[in-house]
Parts: sequence; structure tokens; C-alpha cells
Amino acid sequence: MSYKASIPKGTRDFSATEMVKRKYVFAVMETSFQKFGFSCIETPSMENLETLTGKYGEEGDRLIFKILNSGDFLSKANVDADSTSKSVVSFISDKALRYDLTVPFARYVVQNRNDITFPFKRYQMQPVWRADRPQKGRFREFFQCDADLIGTNSLLAEVELIQLYDEVFSCLGLENFSIQFNNRKVLSGIAEVIGESEKLIDITVCLDKLDKIGKEKVQSEMLSKGVSDKAIIQLSPLFDLVGSNDDKLAKLKSFLSSSEVGLKGIEEIEFVLNTINNLGLKKAKIELNVNLARGLNYYTGAIMEVTAQDYQIGSLGGGGRYDDLTGIFGLKDVSGVGISFGFDRTYMVMDALNLFPELSASKTRVLFVNFGKDESMYCLSLLRDLRSEGISSELYPSSVKLKKQMQYANQKGVEFTVIVGEEEMKSGLLTIKNMKEGSQQNIKFEEFLLTLKN
Amino acid sequence: MSYKASIPKGTRDFSATEMVKRKYVFAVMETSFQKFGFSCIETPSMENLETLTGKYGEEGDRLIFKILNSGDFLSKANVDADSTSKSVVSFISDKALRYDLTVPFARYVVQNRNDITFPFKRYQMQPVWRADRPQKGRFREFFQCDADLIGTNSLLAEVELIQLYDEVFSCLGLENFSIQFNNRKVLSGIAEVIGESEKLIDITVCLDKLDKIGKEKVQSEMLSKGVSDKAIIQLSPLFDLVGSNDDKLAKLKSFLSSSEVGLKGIEEIEFVLNTINNLGLKKAKIELNVNLARGLNYYTGAIMEVTAQDYQIGSLGGGGRYDDLTGIFGLKDVSGVGISFGFDRTYMVMDALNLFPELSASKTRVLFVNFGKDESMYCLSLLRDLRSEGISSELYPSSVKLKKQMQYANQKGVEFTVIVGEEEMKSGLLTIKNMKEGSQQNIKFEEFLLTLKN
Repeated sequence: MSYKASIPKGTRDFSATEMVKRKYVFAVMETSFQKFGFSCIETPSMENLETLTGKYGEEGDRLIFKILNSGDFLSKANVDADSTSKSVVSFISDKALRYDLTVPFARYVVQNRNDITFPFKRYQMQPVWRADRPQKGRFREFFQCDADLIGTNSLLAEVELIQLYDEVFSCLGLENFSIQFNNRKVLSGIAEVIGESEKLIDITVCLDKLDKIGKEKVQSEMLSKGVSDKAIIQLSPLFDLVGSNDDKLAKLKSFLSSSEVGLKGIEEIEFVLNTINNLGLKKAKIELNVNLARGLNYYTGAIMEVTAQDYQIGSLGGGGRYDDLTGIFGLKDVSGVGISFGFDRTYMVMDALNLFPELSASKTRVLFVNFGKDESMYCLSLLRDLRSEGISSELYPSSVKLKKQMQYANQKGVEFTVIVGEEEMKSGLLTIKNMKEGSQQNIKFEEFLLTLKN
Repeated sequence: MSYKASIPKGTRDFSATEMVKRKYVFAVMETSFQKFGFSCIETPSMENLETLTGKYGEEGDRLIFKILNSGDFLSKANVDADSTSKSVVSFISDKALRYDLTVPFARYVVQNRNDITFPFKRYQMQPVWRADRPQKGRFREFFQCDADLIGTNSLLAEVELIQLYDEVFSCLGLENFSIQFNNRKVLSGIAEVIGESEKLIDITVCLDKLDKIGKEKVQSEMLSKGVSDKAIIQLSPLFDLVGSNDDKLAKLKSFLSSSEVGLKGIEEIEFVLNTINNLGLKKAKIELNVNLARGLNYYTGAIMEVTAQDYQIGSLGGGGRYDDLTGIFGLKDVSGVGISFGFDRTYMVMDALNLFPELSASKTRVLFVNFGKDESMYCLSLLRDLRSEGISSELYPSSVKLKKQMQYANQKGVEFTVIVGEEEMKSGLLTIKNMKEGSQQNIKFEEFLLTLKN
């Protein structure tokens, strides 16, 4: 038997070179999360299917990877020629792979509410899986990195998450990125003012596509959803809100003057923007964007999204406030606000813009060249001593040609190679080659150790 | 709709307290891997089903979690009343969750052989999934941490992996653990000497159970597999080999005197043990154990396993040499040797033996108490300044009762709370409470910053 080695489409292997870069991004995110007081939790890769079903809309349900029950899975299913995939699935699968980190987090909070001190600030960096059609920047297995504050309705939480976005992307070296900001209450107010409150969800779903399909298509889509001509005309100026955040806010405020919820949304936006303005941001620009809806209907207040200006790849992350995410699992009145970092897209942007520092795929600083049995025995104890000083080092495992060993050293990016032959064993002086400078010297081990430590 | 929040059996949530401990263990392992010159790779959680099927024996195949094809999965299957789970599975599932890290690694090496410099030293720390019956120390989702050297047949690789086991478990604080060591060639030699070469696999599978079921049951199991009475009697003394490694080796050598492969195995063991003896180990005891077989039939040379003496939980890890793991994917003659660390069991042993250092679930050092709008605005800019100095800090998000905020501070284990009321804003002197000592002082922000930095 011989199979052609391959992996499922939409999934990826990560080489040593890619892994050091991925770990770099993870570390920057994690350091920032911790600096802001968030603690790490993890949840299982698989959740009960019923935990996930119905939380992501019909489209989302279809994209959930289901796990076949183990053992004789058909025994519980009544399968015959009339069976359809839909009628059978719940009998042969009761578990599924995590689709995002938010729903498992809500489930976690409810399940562990007696052990959690609220407000609870948690971060989570784990893979999620979606049976989406793979394309550039879209994978079937990808990482999300989420930070949420749950158990507080203070708008300072929104302020903090904006600062966190700014911190992470600034630390990663992005110069040109914006945080789009909106509020679900403003969207509710707009629907109310144009007399289409019942169509709020349709309207937000259409608005969400404005960037992709343009104003006219959004309007015709709204028409097809039964939004009245009159309402669409009324809505029209809001598509083209321009100017500073203050300009937009002023126009919005007058548009929403008759809507209590709308004005409440304005008030929230003003508080957050003013506070952020007072504090300043490192690199991010914050922009009020009244068309920002993001598909997720669980948002009840702030909505935000990060986009990089220098490289088009969709959003690098998004989030918002949800007043009742845990309600579906039986815990009412817990308000939370959270943001997600799209890890893989962030990585792609950094790669495209050359923002990674120089990183070696290997930490090895020293390679002992192997000249045979006696020499390698001699080197082994020096190697042990280097390692016990915390210095990453290796002995080439066999006495192949010097050229091959040197190639290995170069590929691993080592700083020094140590050559120990008969002469060196006799004199006790090692021949050390500085791989970067190409220079060579004969020194005692103790002296070499000092060089390495400085 | 309200579901009871729960997770699939055999899976686990990890709280913030557990995560800092888990991260501690991961960090110790990773630091050691890197110090020894291993580089990190990662492979996808899902592999093509045919990559995994048939690699772990019949039992293993049953324990692989299969993923239901997305979309109309039944359309490709010809399902009727006569269908069985076995006849249907390959039509409705073509992907499965990783069962271990070794087979995906072999697949990775073959697929990426042109980009890899051999010998390739890689480590990998990722979850694996098995549909096993959950019990103490056995989960359906658990982490493996593997280190392999592939592309060399040097026995120095075996030496290095024994040192690596010693390094990791010593660094984690284990005092009393042993590395059991054997060689598949010795097992082959034994089977040859007793005239049962064809029964080698049955014999090794039976031997593997000696610790669990005892000598008599192993013997009767061998009988039932068709091993002759005479052979079992001949084998008998090897069950009770005692004494030092040298004593055992001497007896084995005479037992195997007629078997070329057996003597080759002895020679390999002697080289490794002598080299290790010359170098010394930190804490590990290395023990020749001729009954050690480990189920996996791909081992061709060294076989090893780690057990903790102070806490019974099965092995903490195991590994060995495989001369043709990649052959099944079309790449012949690539010898490798690798070890696996059972992460979750290691964690359990450390927990049981109290080996974890004091770790706080949160990195937060400073909590600003929130007394209301003006005060919190004042604190926000100090908070920003602390964070820009890299100091983990928070502002309580709302102005609830002081007692509640102090409880939060205690729960997070912060070092200092900062109290800023009207008076402090006027004077510019912050009231700083040292949470450990209970002491309080009024100092300038700059002075506080200096305290934090020292």
C-alpha cells in the first residue's frame, strides 16, 4: 500500500519557518491580552451539536463540521432509500467542531458561572473549523483570537477593546489601519425613523454588504426583502455620510431626533469616541461607519471592525456588545462585549507588508561537527554543558562529509560551529567558526562559553 | 429555546487557573525541545481518512473520529435498509481527526521532502482525538508533545532523546522516574531463539501486557495465539530478569548468542547505555526492560517508555526507532526515532505531587478602583501609561461598591490597588494599597511607577 501524501482542502501544514512567524504573532497578541488583564481559557474542539446548531443562521448551520458518532452509528438511525442527509444527520452525529469561539465561550460562562468572578475578562486563541469554500484568506481550519469582557455594561469595556485592537496591530507593525465603529441601537433607530422596524434584520444584513456590492445593489436587495420605496429613499443619505466623525454624528443626530433608541446609540458612540480621543491611540484611526452591521444578530450595542488600508483582504477582526448571549443557555441579563482577531488574515497582511522581524526557524546557536566516534564522545559532554547553561546547541548525529554538516549548520542559521578533531582533543583548544563573519579561532571551552553568554 | 450547557464526554474546558499551569508545562517542554535543536511544525487537525486508516491496527481504526462530509453527504452513498455502518462510512466521510502526531508527521515529511534538510529534528505540540472510553487519565481530546529526528540512523539520536526525557521531567520537578529501554531487535532475537519468529508480533503484543496482567496470563495468552509450550518454557527466565542493567545484558547476551539480530540489538543497547552512563542524567533512572514492547509495530530498533514512580497513572510517554515509517507514503529508507510526551498525564502527576510553582491565573499587577465618571477618566490615562510601560493593569469597569472591587482585586491576585477620589485628583497623590502587606501610602504616579519597575 502506498498513498499519495496530501491533506484535506482548505487545511494547511505549517513549516518550521512559518511556525516561528505564527508564534511571534500569537506572542504579541497574548502579551497584549495579559497586559490588559485578560486571562486565558480553552474549550474543547468539539461541542455537542445542539450547542452550535441555530446560533449562526441557516448558512452557518450548513458550514458546521459534524463528527460521525463512533461505533455502529447507523444503529440509532432509521435509514432507508427515502432518507435524506438532513433527516439522518441528527441520528448519526451528536458532536461538531467549534465554529467560532463566542458560542463556546457563552456555553462556558453559563456552565461555570459559580466559579467565575464577574466581570470576567478572558482571552482564547484556538482553531475553528468551517466547511466553507476555500479561497484566498479563507481556510477550513483557522485560528481565532478573542478577548471578551462579560458581566458589565460599562462603556469603558468598549473603550478598552478599541485600545486593545490599537495595541495589538500597532505592536505588530501595522501603520495604516482603521477601526470602524457603529452601534446596533443606531441601526434600530434608523429602521424606526424610516418606519421599517420589523425589517431591521433584513436591513442590517443588506447594509453589511455595502462595501462588497455597492449602494444600488443594496437598495434593490432591500426592495426585494419588502422594504418600501419610501423608506429606501429616506435611508439614502445615510449611505453617503462623509466627513469627520463629528460631522457624521451631527447629521445622524438630526436624522434620529425622533427615535429614543437611536439617540441612546448616538450617546454611547459619543462617549466612546470622546474617551478614545482624550486618551489617544497609537496607530489606529477610529471611524464612525453607520453602514457597519456585521451579520451577527446577537449584537445589541457597539459594533466594530478592523481593516488594513495597505492590503485588501477583508476585515482583520470584529466584535461588539451582546446583551444576552448567554440567555440561550439559561443565564439571563449578562451583558458582554468582545472582539475577535482574525489570526490568519493578520499573518497574511504582515507577510505581504514585510512586517515580520528576522526570525530563525531554529533556535540552535552552536553545532558541533561530528568527525567520528571518539570525537563525538568528546563533544557530547561539551554539548551537555552548553545545554545546561541554557544554550541551544546540537551535535551532528553522524560523521558524514564536512560540507554536508556545514550546509546543515547554514540551513539552521547557527552562529557557531565547533570543530573537534584529534588535534583539538589533544590540545584542549576548540576550533570555533563564526558562521556569520566566516572567522575562525582556537579557544578553550570556558572562553567559548563566555562568548556565548555575552 | 434554552439548552443545558454541557460538553461531550471525554472532553474538557480549561479554566484560567488550569491554563496557566498548562502553559507552564508547555513552556518547559518547548524550551527543552528548542535547547536540543528541535524546530516546531504543525499539521492540520483533520487528515484524509485514508492517511490514517490501517496505521493503528483494527482497534485504532475504530477509535478514529470521522468527520461527516459536508453538504448532501448521502448523495454519494448508496444507503438502503441493508446498509451497515461499515459499508457506508467511506462514502459519507473522507476526513478524520488526527489520532496521533506520528502518522501525520510521516505524511508531512513525505509531502515536503524537497523543502526539508535532513536530518530533520522537529517537535509538535497539538491535540489528538480518540473515541476511547473515557476514564482517569484518558480523554477523548488530549495533547501530545512529540520530538522526532528523522533521516539519520545514528544511535546518538537515541542518546539525545533519552537526555531530552531526562531534561523535561527533571525541569518539571519530578524526582523519581525511570526510562524503560529495550530494542525491537532483541525481541526479534528472542523469538528467533525460541523458534517462533513468525509469531513475533503476537509475542510482543502479549509481552506488552506483562505489567498489567502478570506472567501467567501472558503465558496463557501466548499459548492461545499458538506459541508452543516449549517456546514458552524457554522464554520463561526472561520474564524475571533482575539486577543491574549490566547483569541483565550479560544474561541476555548468552540467551541470544545464536541470534545475529538479537546480538545486534544488544550492541545497540550497550552503546546507548554506555554513552548515557558516561554523560550522566539529571534525575532519570534508565532501566533495561526486555518485556517492554509497546503495541506499535512500526518500531524497528530502540523502544522506550517513561514512568513516574510516585504516582501510578501508566506511562508518561514513549517512543522508539522506526526504519520505515514514511514507506507507506512512498518514501523508502528514511530512518527516524522519536518520543512522545503524554501532556495530560504529566500534568496530572505534577498536580498530584504538588510540583507546580505558585502561578497566578491573571497577570494583572495593578487595579485602579473606579469611583465614578471623573475619577475613572483621571485613572484611564494613568492606566494607559502603566500599560505602555508593559505593566499589566486594569481599571474596574464600573463604580460599584468598594468591597466588590476589592474582592475582584483579591480574586485576580493583584499586587496593588490604586484609589483615586476627589482628594487624590486635587493633590495629585495616589492612594496605593499593597494587597499582600495590607499597607497603604500616598505617592506620586512617577514614584509608583518606579516601585512597579523594581
